Amino acid sequence: MKFSASDAETLKLIQMWRRDVRHFKTDAVPEDILERLRAAMDTAPSVGNARPWRVIRVENPTLRRDIRSAFESCNEQAAGSYEPERQDAYRSLKLAGLDAAPVQLAIFTAIDPDAGHRLGRRTMPATLHQSVAMAIHALWLTARAENLGLGMVSILDPARMQTLLNVGPAWEFAAYLCIGWPEFTDDTPLLHRKGWQENRSTVWEVL
Amino acid sequence: MKFSASDAETLKLIQMWRRDVRHFKTDAVPEDILERLRAAMDTAPSVGNARPWRVIRVENPTLRRDIRSAFESCNEQAAGSYEPERQDAYRSLKLAGLDAAPVQLAIFTAIDPDAGHRLGRRTMPATLHQSVAMAIHALWLTARAENLGLGMVSILDPARMQTLLNVGPAWEFAAYLCIGWPEFTDDTPLLHRKGWQENRSTVWEVL
Repeated sequence: MKFSASDAETLKLIQMWRRDVRHFKTDAVPEDILERLRAAMDTAPSVGNARPWRVIRVENPTLRRDIRSAFESCNEQAAGSYEPERQDAYRSLKLAGLDAAPVQLAIFTAIDPDAGHRLGRRTMPATLHQSVAMAIHALWLTARAENLGLGMVSILDPARMQTLLNVGPAWEFAAYLCIGWPEFTDDTPLLHRKGWQENRSTVWEVL
Repeated sequence: MKFSASDAETLKLIQMWRRDVRHFKTDAVPEDILERLRAAMDTAPSVGNARPWRVIRVENPTLRRDIRSAFESCNEQAAGSYEPERQDAYRSLKLAGLDAAPVQLAIFTAIDPDAGHRLGRRTMPATLHQSVAMAIHALWLTARAENLGLGMVSILDPARMQTLLNVGPAWEFAAYLCIGWPEFTDDTPLLHRKGWQENRSTVWEVL
């Protein structure tokens, strides 16, 4: 399989226009598109080919309400940790689309899976978490290519999420994902646009 | 920006044909392609837009030799940790392309960066490591779209890598990447093909 310059350009545009989306329409997402998102996770790199992720699609309204409340509590504590000026800036940001996103996924990492037979993680157990992050990113890019938005919510207490979703200690909470049709698209991160943290270019040092 | 079904299909193929490559040709990679790989990292999601990664391109032959030797030592210890039958299977796998890959990058994660002003990582410091994993994945897919191979080496002692590359405690070793022209391409993980760990499909449970 050989890709063309045009294929590389397509990937570049999908990556450029992928955003952390927090502004969603409530319209449903067809199941055939969600199936393509699910399948995209299978293509992610994983240590020892272990695919150490667990995905829970949260549909129960009570559970969704509890998760939203857990976010609001953490977000309020985070706001309170800043000095007044930055606290105002923080409060002006919308940091999750939990109110509207029609599809919501909780993602967990297996901390000692049989799959993979420990290959590649003996000296670096963090490779399990890296694998899960890459599976989220594979899903994220595929969502963008389907013109869907995805927002990754980390302003949550992992222990609380484990309890709410009844997930035992063999798994660690990784992220909560909101997916749906975005209110708008953008090629620039919201935090750059809003002046919270400007973009900086990656440098490759040489040794 | 709206993507077409054909754009989504292109992304799907790039993701399907991305492999962890350990078999490289020694031919050089043009600098203009490497510049596109570097720029791809800028498109990765990052917590608080912090972009908490540090990239060191390792060119020094002595350093490369020391890193290869560090890998061999860890790989030998890993092999020895298996019972005889799986030990033979392990030893039959080529797990790194350090011998031939013309471009080699050491990646580190900032553990408490000023950038991002702590947004999104208060309850989940692991988001910094997730960001770096996603930047590696963004680079990886871009390499594949350029018909380059990339292999992520984790059979290394992180403390030894910090010492070898003279990187202080503000950064944590994340991965060592080998990049170059692959000897062959494949749509199936080597560990599945070799019978080490078969592919399993991602399941989305519903709650």
